[in-house]
Amino acid sequence: MQTLPAPSTQSRYHFVRKRVDVCVCYAAMRLLLISSSNVHGYGYLDHAEPFILDFLGGRRRVAFIPFAAHDHARYTGVVRERMAKMNVEVLDADAIDGAEAIFTGGGNTFRLLKTLYERNLIGRIRELVRSGVFYMGSSAGTNIAGPTIKTTNDMPIVWPPSLDALGLVPFQINPHYLDPDPASTHRGETREERIREFHEENATPVVGLREGGMLRVEDAVVRLVGSSAARLFQRGQPPLEIQPGALLEL
Amino acid sequence: MQTLPAPSTQSRYHFVRKRVDVCVCYAAMRLLLISSSNVHGYGYLDHAEPFILDFLGGRRRVAFIPFAAHDHARYTGVVRERMAKMNVEVLDADAIDGAEAIFTGGGNTFRLLKTLYERNLIGRIRELVRSGVFYMGSSAGTNIAGPTIKTTNDMPIVWPPSLDALGLVPFQINPHYLDPDPASTHRGETREERIREFHEENATPVVGLREGGMLRVEDAVVRLVGSSAARLFQRGQPPLEIQPGALLEL
Repeated sequence: MQTLPAPSTQSRYHFVRKRVDVCVCYAAMRLLLISSSNVHGYGYLDHAEPFILDFLGGRRRVAFIPFAAHDHARYTGVVRERMAKMNVEVLDADAIDGAEAIFTGGGNTFRLLKTLYERNLIGRIRELVRSGVFYMGSSAGTNIAGPTIKTTNDMPIVWPPSLDALGLVPFQINPHYLDPDPASTHRGETREERIREFHEENATPVVGLREGGMLRVEDAVVRLVGSSAARLFQRGQPPLEIQPGALLEL
Repeated sequence: MQTLPAPSTQSRYHFVRKRVDVCVCYAAMRLLLISSSNVHGYGYLDHAEPFILDFLGGRRRVAFIPFAAHDHARYTGVVRERMAKMNVEVLDADAIDGAEAIFTGGGNTFRLLKTLYERNLIGRIRELVRSGVFYMGSSAGTNIAGPTIKTTNDMPIVWPPSLDALGLVPFQINPHYLDPDPASTHRGETREERIREFHEENATPVVGLREGGMLRVEDAVVRLVGSSAARLFQRGQPPLEIQPGALLEL
């Protein structure tokens, strides 16, 4: 497998869009970015199971990245048991080189990113995915597919060396996106207000991915799948609702 | 005014508790840490006004720190107009040396902290407050009174050089503390779960300060005031409810 340099997200993206013309070396990139592993009324990963199996095709060896949680062994065990029911074999995180797909689970995004940096895995995972290894994420694992983790909902309980993440897609994701509750008496910022603050300081588009929603990415083609509409925030423009099945035009 | 070194929060705290015996140089330290400037059913700062006036005593010159917001001039104007109704004069942030009190407003805590570092104000504010200048904060301004901002609810829309904050009190604060809603179908982490994650990685106690609640600090004596109970989280112990009027024993 060829080791590729890490171009900026923007230039990589243009590269991929033009790959027929310019003969780039990247294999097809395939991502399934899940908002949340738990959805009201479903068991763990139940709502996502048909989308995961369709995404994986015949692939059955999935390395699991548990670093968003405190107890890695326990978390890997839970996921291994759940995915065995889907006839998927879960490998430990240190076996990513032998995996057909990588799955990064949810938890605390700062802890996940810090551990990935400590283990020198940011560039490694990026290379593997750009070389054709499938990538699935849920919640924190979906967050890190964007250029940075600046639109996480999590507390900064630890301090990673940077907020820069995998940059597999050229937009930010806000998982567990939540609409304002008109009946609420709480006066903390709504999610939409927080994303507006992000756009006071940054220009990158943000996809608010509601629970039940997933993004299926095939190179530069991004499709919303699952049961929930998503909300697209672009700086200086009113937010847009994206319906399941639609392509994201970014 | 004497410039003091910045000892660790822990050692400073022990110093202050023993100040009669060991003759430390700190003046009395006075803080009013407000959970939120807006509370359901009240106008801006209305619920806090009697507590602010009681706290300030005869002090009427308050420097306002607007850096949690994007538009500093506009934010300062809003606060100046509101506090004029309380017969309090609001000075600009660059006039802190001539102020009797400092008030840091809410907004995005990462943006606030980054700007304080950029303007070399962290040490300066800490020194002023330890020398006797009164400190008031609301939301983000309350967050930074603790040792770090690791228990903020805000998005990391910008990247400060450190999460270390003013360290005026030896505990973390979570403003806008929110109880789990048993009717919610949302599966994102509750606030209590997020604070539990914080304690997987850190040992500092956390005060969950509900909207309507405030902490009034006189040196090492911390009292909850306002209309709401608070929730105290200590690592490895069940959370405790603190009623308004009670002292926090930490």
